[in-house]
Amino acid sequence: MTTTSTPVPRSLLVDRIGVLVTNDPGAGEGRLGRILDAALVVEEGRVAWTGPAGRAPAADARVDAAGRCVVPGFVDSHSHIVFAGDRGAEFAARMEGRAYEAGGIRSTVAATRAASDDALLARATELLGEARAQGTTTLEIKSGYGLTVADEERALRVAARLTEEVTFLGAHVVPQEYAADPAGYVDLVTGPMLRACAPHARWIDVFCERGAFDEEAARRVLTAGREHGLLARVHGNQLGPGPGVGLAVELGAASVDHCTYLDGADIAALADPASSTVATLLPGVDFSTRAPYPDARALLDAGATVALATDCNPGSCFSTSMALCIALAVREMRMTPDEALWAATEGGARALRRDDIGHLRVGARADLVLLEAPDPLYLAYRPGVPQVAAVWKDGERVAGRA
Amino acid sequence: MTTTSTPVPRSLLVDRIGVLVTNDPGAGEGRLGRILDAALVVEEGRVAWTGPAGRAPAADARVDAAGRCVVPGFVDSHSHIVFAGDRGAEFAARMEGRAYEAGGIRSTVAATRAASDDALLARATELLGEARAQGTTTLEIKSGYGLTVADEERALRVAARLTEEVTFLGAHVVPQEYAADPAGYVDLVTGPMLRACAPHARWIDVFCERGAFDEEAARRVLTAGREHGLLARVHGNQLGPGPGVGLAVELGAASVDHCTYLDGADIAALADPASSTVATLLPGVDFSTRAPYPDARALLDAGATVALATDCNPGSCFSTSMALCIALAVREMRMTPDEALWAATEGGARALRRDDIGHLRVGARADLVLLEAPDPLYLAYRPGVPQVAAVWKDGERVAGRA
Ligand SMILES: [Zn+2]
Ligand SMILES: [Zn+2]
Repeated sequence: MTTTSTPVPRSLLVDRIGVLVTNDPGAGEGRLGRILDAALVVEEGRVAWTGPAGRAPAADARVDAAGRCVVPGFVDSHSHIVFAGDRGAEFAARMEGRAYEAGGIRSTVAATRAASDDALLARATELLGEARAQGTTTLEIKSGYGLTVADEERALRVAARLTEEVTFLGAHVVPQEYAADPAGYVDLVTGPMLRACAPHARWIDVFCERGAFDEEAARRVLTAGREHGLLARVHGNQLGPGPGVGLAVELGAASVDHCTYLDGADIAALADPASSTVATLLPGVDFSTRAPYPDARALLDAGATVALATDCNPGSCFSTSMALCIALAVREMRMTPDEALWAATEGGARALRRDDIGHLRVGARADLVLLEAPDPLYLAYRPGVPQVAAVWKDGERVAGRA
Repeated sequence: MTTTSTPVPRSLLVDRIGVLVTNDPGAGEGRLGRILDAALVVEEGRVAWTGPAGRAPAADARVDAAGRCVVPGFVDSHSHIVFAGDRGAEFAARMEGRAYEAGGIRSTVAATRAASDDALLARATELLGEARAQGTTTLEIKSGYGLTVADEERALRVAARLTEEVTFLGAHVVPQEYAADPAGYVDLVTGPMLRACAPHARWIDVFCERGAFDEEAARRVLTAGREHGLLARVHGNQLGPGPGVGLAVELGAASVDHCTYLDGADIAALADPASSTVATLLPGVDFSTRAPYPDARALLDAGATVALATDCNPGSCFSTSMALCIALAVREMRMTPDEALWAATEGGARALRRDDIGHLRVGARADLVLLEAPDPLYLAYRPGVPQVAAVWKDGERVAGRA
């Protein structure tokens, strides 16, 4: 993990915050729990106090926000950053409408298998640092470019060095060597691969889509994972209508991700108060593949819980920018700036079934971002502009300068 | 201007460049003049040598690009960064489809008039620094939020402290006090205001659009400017079809900006080899106002010269990110990554009638950007991700670390 060499002060006062977003309706105004002219105190890596500036308790160190805003660190609940290889040329070809033979997920699988452990870790560490510098304090990381027992286990070991939110995605795609025997691959994923991988992961995920894994295979994967103590999440309804959402809700998955093609029953299932499955939208993918955007308004208006995540991966969206996701959510999916910020923080936390992150209630992890902006709506108002001034994770500054 | 305190070495070798974009077809491959495994030498603020790494002449200082790519500094030929006030709430209202009474350009005019010289300069300096850190080495800056003789002149004085590319845009909008007498305002702009402003500017611009200035008024403004030694540029065809493009080409304006609504005659006029008027596209505006994007392909395929610029302003696009413009140009306007990069560098230079910037031919200003990427197509491939490692202007490092 990235650490600074400065010793961490026991307590820290972030003072003169123009707008503090707590995501705690009990602490401030609205769903974002906004406090104007605020201060926040960190003790032992946790939020110890929030309230009006000038009334904060004393602390060992002080940061002057000088009227700028502070938001919870972004929770990016969906990434694939353990990989090798370069698919830039494939991206360019796709944008230009040219055919490109050598690309696709299988090219990443081949390059990842061929890479050294050190190379995989170095690349993923670099991408994690890049995400951190942009305000992401929690990043879920999936396997899925190994697709052998040894290569999937290796990817999870790498991921586990960088995050607590490790996801086994052996069921990403059927690898070439099983093209004639996809059921045999599901046997592998749910058998030896799962036994080797489960100790290194918290989550199991499956790409439930035409051309990848059908409903029955996806169900087998997720239930086998559950038997090994893994919690479920699903890639679903990205490329067309399908059973992904229904299956995710039925199995109580924490999240179903993409949700580009939903029907009324899918929306109703996600909005059902009895369901705790989050709809995680990945607008960077729709941007980078020139796909339609999901209907976030229908989900929100029905009462579903929506998260935003990057899906950072070399094929369909090579971006670590949660700020871009927010800007796209507002511009393209008609989420309000407040809804988008909530979805990128508390929404991501819910998609990871975490109650210690995504908000700045007293007791939460002190994962926070100081923005070079007077208001968090500047994340959507100033697209593309780096606006992260400083980032703290567990109360420790991991990026920027205050 | 932002300067570092480090003494500038007389000569500098940028070595081991993975891909060097020169925009000089004579120096390298294709229209971008790409040289692989390259080096570049700067002497006295100018490009002194480009060629294969390992064959470069000696220099006083050396930077190791370590396989990363180097591109010409971005030339952002269209901005309005001399202003005061905050229109974030208006942006949010527009995105949410809510009415918003207190906004619009007139609110910026009121705030700008009320601001101190120091406040205007400080804000513009901050935005220029932000643009520099993102790779913009030349930034055109317009007046247009003063709309009195004194306030327009003041804006130009501020702009002239920050750039050589200063544009008088008294004809931005008819101010409230002339609402009943728009012709009287054109008299002011072409009379006393022009006399006061011309000494501080290189360019004159007019917003030729229904609701702003019609063709006849725009022609008066531009021809009066020419008589005072100012070169013409035009805001045209943004909100609907109109005479802006035709007028710009007829008067030999350097650029006509927006070009969202073009007919066949507009495209033919811009593509006419006898015309040197550049079509400057501002996709950040279309993004931030949820407007349609211009048909860049029709322009390019017809042979017109296309530039990309931010239009950074508090109302319709508060972004300084040329990288975002490139990503939007590729995603939304179907420009190729190469076309978009060219438009953001050499295209901008042509829109400013400059031959010393926008490329890295020997003799050009040493305005260059080291990207944290192996290939410049990563600007489109990795949307939202800050990828600028270091920036040099006239051979002096003005942002980042090498
Ligand atoms: Zn994914
Ligand atoms: Zn403009």
